[in-house]
Amino acid sequence: MDVSEALRSRRSTRAFEPDGLLLGREVLEDLIFEATRAPSEFNLQPWRFLVVRDRERKQALYDCCFKQEKIRQASALIVVCGDTRGWERADKAAEELIETGYFDPGPAAQPGQQSIQSAQSDARALAERIKNTYLRDERARIAMAYRNPALVAMNLMLVATERGIASCPIAGFSEPQLRRAFEIPDRFVPVVIIALGMPSLAMGRQPVKPRRPLFEVVYHEDMASW
Amino acid sequence: MDVSEALRSRRSTRAFEPDGLLLGREVLEDLIFEATRAPSEFNLQPWRFLVVRDRERKQALYDCCFKQEKIRQASALIVVCGDTRGWERADKAAEELIETGYFDPGPAAQPGQQSIQSAQSDARALAERIKNTYLRDERARIAMAYRNPALVAMNLMLVATERGIASCPIAGFSEPQLRRAFEIPDRFVPVVIIALGMPSLAMGRQPVKPRRPLFEVVYHEDMASW
Repeated sequence: MDVSEALRSRRSTRAFEPDGLLLGREVLEDLIFEATRAPSEFNLQPWRFLVVRDRERKQALYDCCFKQEKIRQASALIVVCGDTRGWERADKAAEELIETGYFDPGPAAQPGQQSIQSAQSDARALAERIKNTYLRDERARIAMAYRNPALVAMNLMLVATERGIASCPIAGFSEPQLRRAFEIPDRFVPVVIIALGMPSLAMGRQPVKPRRPLFEVVYHEDMASW
Repeated sequence: MDVSEALRSRRSTRAFEPDGLLLGREVLEDLIFEATRAPSEFNLQPWRFLVVRDRERKQALYDCCFKQEKIRQASALIVVCGDTRGWERADKAAEELIETGYFDPGPAAQPGQQSIQSAQSDARALAERIKNTYLRDERARIAMAYRNPALVAMNLMLVATERGIASCPIAGFSEPQLRRAFEIPDRFVPVVIIALGMPSLAMGRQPVKPRRPLFEVVYHEDMASW
């Protein structure tokens, strides 16, 4: 299914057929793996995914989401989380970035051992730079924890659409309640919950919600005209 | 192009062929419109897009982004922003949600005028609920401003890929500098910059950066095992 078609046919499904799809662990993990082809800052991949399929756990999630019925109806749910300490993986990420050539380590003085040493010192320097970006800047850590997982969440919905699985993104939840019920550590931030399943058979095809006209949201060259 | 193929073939292009593509205003606005088919919380669509094509404005953006050469090379750039005051559109959004049936106004006592009045009072109640979600909760406003535009940013990259346009997401910028140079009002938060263009001809096909194995990022039913 074309990207454009997936974008046009996706709906935020407001009612699911209870247990309408059998979504096994492998199907869901494959969905997640495809979605994590999203880019991330410094390739830190500061995200986690909590898969909920068990009936009692769905009930617990329902209680955390102001009792939205679609939570209990969905075949499975994925709680997409961000990692405010994603920068702690900087050493590994820096090595991978140098290896795949995303940060040019510059010309080596001599080929062979020399250039490997150079790559290693470049990776160390890059890792330091990554850490310094987040270490003293809480806003940078929060931005990291929200924007990267959201990229994956969009992919999750598009890949699901392509595979005939309906979805609904849910941002209405009590964060403290969710943390308690699902033992989510402080370092992780729940960003959005993606409900997956089959649309309710009783519900007709949902209309597309109106989008704002471009002149309301697009600026050219600067925002002075705002 | 299939969603899966777009996800697999997308690269964070690290060098562009200077002015390699002619990306006109209409092409870019159409790209943005397709991408805004992303869902948003309460359909508030709390996002703005600043399109940069002018050579001097690219130079200014380059200065805001720690002098990353790809900024000057790109054919166009889209600064994707979030709106921390997106909830101010709650009245309009609530009306649209009731009209398109996303929030069931419940059975009307009588058909006709009665049910229209009911829908109107339901819209008012929903608008109040939306406002209360954000009014006293700064974290909710920040989450809104980062996660919704990030969904659109992912779509931008996928639609671009489908249309043969290479892209690179850039999160490395000085926010204060960006605000000053492009007159971005306080209420808007720059989330990510998407550079668009043709990959550098001198650069070979870029490798895919490694992704973390699933066992590092996926949990089932709760995070107690973390």
